[in-house]
Amino acid sequence: MTSTLQPPTATARRTPQQRVDDWLARFDQALTAGDPTAAAGLFAVDGFWRDLVAFTWNLKTAEGREQIAEMLGARLADTAPSNWATAEPATETPDGVAEAFVEFETRTGRGSAHLRLRPGPDGNDEGWTLLTTLQELKGHEEPQGHARPLGAVHGADTDRRSWAQKRDDEESELGRTTQPYTLVIGGGQGGIALGARLRQLGVPSIVVDTHDRPGDQWRKRYKSLCLHDPVWYDHLPYLPFPENWPVFAPKDKIGDWLEFYTRVMEVPYWSKTTCTSAAYDEDAQRWTVELDRDGERLTLYPAQLVLATGMSGKKNVPTFPGHEVFAGEQHHSSEHPGPDAYAGKKVVVIGANNSAHDICKALVENGVDTTMVQRSSTHIVKSDSLMEVGLGALYSQQAVDSGMTTKKADMVFASMPYRIMHQWQIPIYDEIRLRDKDFYDSLTAAGFDLDFGDDDSGLFLKYLRRGSGYYINVGASELVADGTIKLAKGGVDHLTENSVVLSDGTELPADVVVYATGYGSMNGWAADLIGQEVADRVGKVWGLGSETAKDPGPWEGEQRNMWKPTQQPGLWFHGGNLHQSRHYSLYLALQLKARYEGLDTPVYGQQEVHHLK
Amino acid sequence: MTSTLQPPTATARRTPQQRVDDWLARFDQALTAGDPTAAAGLFAVDGFWRDLVAFTWNLKTAEGREQIAEMLGARLADTAPSNWATAEPATETPDGVAEAFVEFETRTGRGSAHLRLRPGPDGNDEGWTLLTTLQELKGHEEPQGHARPLGAVHGADTDRRSWAQKRDDEESELGRTTQPYTLVIGGGQGGIALGARLRQLGVPSIVVDTHDRPGDQWRKRYKSLCLHDPVWYDHLPYLPFPENWPVFAPKDKIGDWLEFYTRVMEVPYWSKTTCTSAAYDEDAQRWTVELDRDGERLTLYPAQLVLATGMSGKKNVPTFPGHEVFAGEQHHSSEHPGPDAYAGKKVVVIGANNSAHDICKALVENGVDTTMVQRSSTHIVKSDSLMEVGLGALYSQQAVDSGMTTKKADMVFASMPYRIMHQWQIPIYDEIRLRDKDFYDSLTAAGFDLDFGDDDSGLFLKYLRRGSGYYINVGASELVADGTIKLAKGGVDHLTENSVVLSDGTELPADVVVYATGYGSMNGWAADLIGQEVADRVGKVWGLGSETAKDPGPWEGEQRNMWKPTQQPGLWFHGGNLHQSRHYSLYLALQLKARYEGLDTPVYGQQEVHHLK
Repeated sequence: MTSTLQPPTATARRTPQQRVDDWLARFDQALTAGDPTAAAGLFAVDGFWRDLVAFTWNLKTAEGREQIAEMLGARLADTAPSNWATAEPATETPDGVAEAFVEFETRTGRGSAHLRLRPGPDGNDEGWTLLTTLQELKGHEEPQGHARPLGAVHGADTDRRSWAQKRDDEESELGRTTQPYTLVIGGGQGGIALGARLRQLGVPSIVVDTHDRPGDQWRKRYKSLCLHDPVWYDHLPYLPFPENWPVFAPKDKIGDWLEFYTRVMEVPYWSKTTCTSAAYDEDAQRWTVELDRDGERLTLYPAQLVLATGMSGKKNVPTFPGHEVFAGEQHHSSEHPGPDAYAGKKVVVIGANNSAHDICKALVENGVDTTMVQRSSTHIVKSDSLMEVGLGALYSQQAVDSGMTTKKADMVFASMPYRIMHQWQIPIYDEIRLRDKDFYDSLTAAGFDLDFGDDDSGLFLKYLRRGSGYYINVGASELVADGTIKLAKGGVDHLTENSVVLSDGTELPADVVVYATGYGSMNGWAADLIGQEVADRVGKVWGLGSETAKDPGPWEGEQRNMWKPTQQPGLWFHGGNLHQSRHYSLYLALQLKARYEGLDTPVYGQQEVHHLK
Repeated sequence: MTSTLQPPTATARRTPQQRVDDWLARFDQALTAGDPTAAAGLFAVDGFWRDLVAFTWNLKTAEGREQIAEMLGARLADTAPSNWATAEPATETPDGVAEAFVEFETRTGRGSAHLRLRPGPDGNDEGWTLLTTLQELKGHEEPQGHARPLGAVHGADTDRRSWAQKRDDEESELGRTTQPYTLVIGGGQGGIALGARLRQLGVPSIVVDTHDRPGDQWRKRYKSLCLHDPVWYDHLPYLPFPENWPVFAPKDKIGDWLEFYTRVMEVPYWSKTTCTSAAYDEDAQRWTVELDRDGERLTLYPAQLVLATGMSGKKNVPTFPGHEVFAGEQHHSSEHPGPDAYAGKKVVVIGANNSAHDICKALVENGVDTTMVQRSSTHIVKSDSLMEVGLGALYSQQAVDSGMTTKKADMVFASMPYRIMHQWQIPIYDEIRLRDKDFYDSLTAAGFDLDFGDDDSGLFLKYLRRGSGYYINVGASELVADGTIKLAKGGVDHLTENSVVLSDGTELPADVVVYATGYGSMNGWAADLIGQEVADRVGKVWGLGSETAKDPGPWEGEQRNMWKPTQQPGLWFHGGNLHQSRHYSLYLALQLKARYEGLDTPVYGQQEVHHLK
C-alpha cells in the first residue's frame, strides 16, 4: 500500500482543529483506558514525546513508539492525565503538519503541551512530536493574576510591621534562625531567575554570589561586552524588557536590570558570599554548606543545592612550555580587564571563539596590535542573520506583532526534539551561508578556518552539544577579514620571554597573552566545593551525546544534568543562556517545590553517567 | 417628528462597524472640504470633542456644536487631519451607542481617537463624544518596537566608550557643559514618568528632587502607607507592573520600583537637589534656575520648566489660637513620622480625609489613644468597591483577561467629558451605596458625617474637582465605626497647654496634634520658587470650575493648568495620581518635544485665569 496512489483521505480535507481534536480524543481514550501500547501506537514509529516534569518528574525525551510505551507503562497510572484541549485554534504548516498548543491536567498539576501531527503511511494522523510540560501544581499555584497578593490589609492589621519591616525581618532570620529549603550558588541571570520563581512558589531559598551587587557578573566584564542574543529571546520570568530596550543590551544595562529585578521581584540574595564547602548528609537528607558572607562565617543546611555558577565551568588554562619564563602579562579571557592598559603593546590571544573575538575587537579599537591564534575551526554567524533567519519566527518584533508570546515561543522551541533538531537547523544555516556568502568568503580569504557545526546544523546545535566553538559576529569578523585583527594559524608550541611560538615555528612577539581557551564542565565547581567523588558521581554537565566534537556518545536525548535530578541526591544544576535561564527555571522550581511540599516525585529515566567531565 | 414613532431606520439594523465607518467617512469628507460647520453638524447639538494636543496644541474640550465649529474654524486648516480608520472592530453598548477606537493622522503627527455615536432625533448617528489625542510626531517617533535601538554596534565602533561610559559622560556634561531643554522639579511618579517620556523622545532634560533616592517620596512616609488605587490603574509608561505585583502596593515596594524604573529607563535624575529660585528671561525665552545639588551651587538655563512637585501644593496648616502655648508636639500630616513614638500618648488628628484616616489607623494599631476631629463631611468608598464597581470595567484582572490594555483603558477613561462625567459616575455610586449599605450605616451610626460628592457623583469627581475631601477605605473606617478611632465633631476653637477645644466647648486632652488639614494649590510652589507675580499670572491649579465645594466657577472644561500651556510662557504643571502621571505625561512630553524641535505649536483656547489659588 503506497500512500502516493491512495486517494486523499479525510485527513487531507479536515481542518487542523478537527485533526487535532480527533487525535486528542483517541489519545485521551487510550490514556484513560490505561493502555500504553494503544497510546504509543498513536505516534509515528519515529515519533517523539518530550516530557518536562509532568509525567516523568524529569526532563526526558522518549524517542519512538517503544520508548513512549515504556514511559507510559511506568508513569501513566500515577500521572492520571486528563482534560486535553487546544488552548487556541490549531494551525497547519504548508507541508501538512497540524500544530497545536494544548492544555491538560494530571493528578497533581496542570500542564501546557505542544503537538505536531502528520499523516502516517495509511493517511491517518500520527503524533510526530509531543511536548508535555508541567506549569503548576494543584494547591500550590503562584499568586499572580487573579491570585496576586492584595498588598494593603483591609481592616485591622494584626501584624504591625510594614512591608519593608517584614522583609527586613525575613532577611535577618533567613539563614540564621530559619533555614532555606534551597540554596542556589551563583547569582547571575540563572540564579536570579530561579530565585524569582522559588519566591513566587513560596519555597524558602537563598541565592548567593561572590560579587558585590547583583549584575556585577556583567558589569565587571570587558567594556565592549553586550548580549549576542536579541531582546525577545532574553526576557526574564514575570518582567519582560520594555518595548524600547535595545536589541542587544550593553553589559551595564543588563547589570542594572538584574540588580533591580532582584530587588523588585524580592529575590532573597546574599552578595559578597563565597561557599567554601558543602557535604551531603544522607541520613538527614540535607546539605551542610559552609559560607563566608562578607567576612562572617556561617553554616546553612538546605535540603536542596543548586549550582547556578554559569554554563561555563572552571576556566581552562593550558600550561605551555615556557609560560613561566614569559616576561609579560598572561591571563585567561574570564579575567581580561579590557583594552585600556594595553595601548602600544602587542597582544596575542590564544583561541578563536566568542571571547577571543570580543577581546580582539575591543583591543584593536583601542589601537592595540592584536593577533588571534586559531587552532581549530570556528562556527561564525552574523548576529542579525541569526536573529532574523534563526530566531525570527519565534523571537523578533515581527513575531511579537503577529501574536507570538514568550511562552508560546519557548514551547515551540522546546518542542523540537534534540534528535532531529538538525533537520530544522540545517536549512536555516544553508540559507544563512547563501545570504552572507560575501562575508564568509572574505573570512576564508583572510585564512580563517570556518565551520557550520559537524553536520552543518549551525550555531544552536553547536551550543547545545558543546557550549563553545562559535562566535556570534557583532563586528569582530569584519576586522579579521580586513586584517585589522591579525590571524595566526596552528597550535601553540611554547612561550619565550617575549613571544608565542606556534607549532610551525611562527614566532609572535607578545607583551600580553590572553588565554581565550574556554572552560571545563560545570561539575568542576562541584569538585571544588563538594569533592571529586560527588563530581564524578554526577559526571559531565551539558551536551547531548551527539558524537560530535567535544560531545561524545552515547546519546543522552537531553542536556546532561541540567535542570533535572542528578545522581547526587539534592544536587541540581541550573544555567544556560537567558532563554534557558528563563524557561527551564520554571521546571526546576516546580521540581523543588514539589519536594518542598513533600509530594511524591518518582523520577522516570534518571540520567546515567557516561563521562566524568 | 418624534423618533419614537418613526420606523427603525437603517441605523438600527447596521453593525457598529458600519455605523462608525459611515460616520467617519462623512466626517473625513467635511474635514477635507475644510468645512467646520458641516463637520460640527455631524455631532449632537450637545456633543463633545475633547482634544489632547492633536488639533489644539492644548488639552481642550469643545462642548456642543458651536464650540466644535469654532475650534475647527481656527485649527482645521493647519491640522490637516486624514486617514480616519478604526483600529479594531467597533462595538455597541446595550443602549445603542456605537463605540470605536480610531486612528488618524495630521500634518505633523499620528493620533489615536475614541468615538461614541448615538442616534439623533432623525435616527441618524451623531457624534456624541470624540476624543482625539496626539500619539507621536512625524519624524520624531520614539525608538521602540521595530525602531528600538540596536545596542551593540555592528562593525567597528568609532565611539570607543562603553554604554556605561557614555551615560557617565552624559551625566557629567548635562547641566554643566550642556543645558537641559526641560527642567522637571519634583522626582516622584509624575516627574519620573515625564522624565522617561522625554528621554525616549530625545528631549535633553533633568528631573530634580530633594530626596536622597528616587522612591524616597514613598519610603519616607508613614509606614502603613500603601497605594489606594489598584495596580492596573497604576502602571508607569513602558514598563507595567508584573502579574504578581500586589493589588495595593506597600510604599516601600513602590519606592523600590520607582528607583529601579528611574535607572533602567535612563531617566536623567538629580537627587539631593533643591531649587532655590527661578526667573524667566523674556528676551532669551528661557529660565534662570538656581539650584543646590548636594551642597554644590549651580545655575541652569532650561527653556521649559515643569513643576511636578505633587498634586498637593504646599501644606496647609491652620493657626489656631493657643497653638503657641500647646506643650505637646504639633505637625502637619505630611510630616507625620508614624505611630512608633506615641505609645501611651493621646493624639488628636484634625481632619477626616485620606491622611487623617491613614494616620489614625496606624496609631490605633500601635495602641495609641487617638481622636479624629471631623469638621465637614467626607466621602468614603471602600477600596474594593471602588476597584470592582468603579474601575473594574477598565482597570482590573478581568478587564486584562478580556483584552483590555492600559492604553485603551486610558483612552476610554479620557473620552468621558468632564461636563457629563457625573452621569456615568452617579449610578456607580448608587450601586456602591447599596452594595455597602451596612458599612455606611455603621459609620453614620458612629456619628461620622458622610457625603458622596455634591451631586452624589462620588470619588473620582470629588478628586478631579478638589483633590481632597475623601478617603478610600482600606480599614480605617471600620475602626471609626467601632469606636477604636474616637470621633469628635466640629471645628477647632483653640488649643490649651494640653488639649484641643472644639467650637462647642468639647475639650480633647492631647499630647500630640496632627494637622491633617490638606494642601494649597500647586501654584504655591511657583510663588515660593519664582514669585507671587508669576503664581498669580498662572492662577489656581487643579479643579474643573464645577461650582462645588472648593471648586468655584466658571466652568473650565479641563483641569486648571495641568499638563498644558499656562499663562506663564515656559511654565508647566505635571502630576496627579499614577494613572494621570502615566497618561498625561505623554501629552506634556509631546508638547515639549514639539517646542524643542521648533515646530509651530499655536495654542487654541488657552486657559484664562479666574482664581489665584
